[in-house]
Amino acid sequence: MKDKVNLAEKIKLLNKPYQPGVVGYLNNYKLIVVKVHGEFVWHKHDETDDFFLVLRGHLTIQLRDRDIELDKGELYVVPKGIEHCPKADAEAYVLVIEPKDTINTGNAGGTLTVDPVEI
Amino acid sequence: MKDKVNLAEKIKLLNKPYQPGVVGYLNNYKLIVVKVHGEFVWHKHDETDDFFLVLRGHLTIQLRDRDIELDKGELYVVPKGIEHCPKADAEAYVLVIEPKDTINTGNAGGTLTVDPVEI
Repeated sequence: MKDKVNLAEKIKLLNKPYQPGVVGYLNNYKLIVVKVHGEFVWHKHDETDDFFLVLRGHLTIQLRDRDIELDKGELYVVPKGIEHCPKADAEAYVLVIEPKDTINTGNAGGTLTVDPVEI
Repeated sequence: MKDKVNLAEKIKLLNKPYQPGVVGYLNNYKLIVVKVHGEFVWHKHDETDDFFLVLRGHLTIQLRDRDIELDKGELYVVPKGIEHCPKADAEAYVLVIEPKDTINTGNAGGTLTVDPVEI
């Protein structure tokens, strides 16, 4: 990494919800910022945990047996293999960390499946 | 991970600078909070990058050829093998992510070498 990353400035470069923006790497992990608004899609990652840290707003990570409610400065790691579905009624900003080859929609596929952009 | 982690609440549980507190795991990586105050020790990690995100205050990551100045909401990943020395004139709160087996002082050793505590 050549220079520091200001997360708030990077997130401004994203123009739609659920478009992941890669701001850097930690070994073979990608550091992603994303605007969350509305409901994503139920999915799981059988090969990896999934890290979420809320930078602004409120994020709900729906699990099959409960909801995880995250405000700014709160994080949750979804264990590998566990179905989850993020949602936010108002736009939230989130830092996500997962291996480089992780697909955003996991096993679900569908129209929300996108490659991250480098920002 | 059973429940969410509030980073500010966790950091309050640490009673001295440079005592790493593990708040969770992402696969084989540990998620650490740490209070930084004063200067750490010059060191490097030959096997891994090192992730720093400032949660409060201001952190300087000294590199041999320049300083990286981080305010709240800014992150930097020190590439593996690169010598660095964190410092903060006033207490800063930092999230660090690195593989579980990473030693806090890297190759340097010395009196600041400590195991993280689970908090």
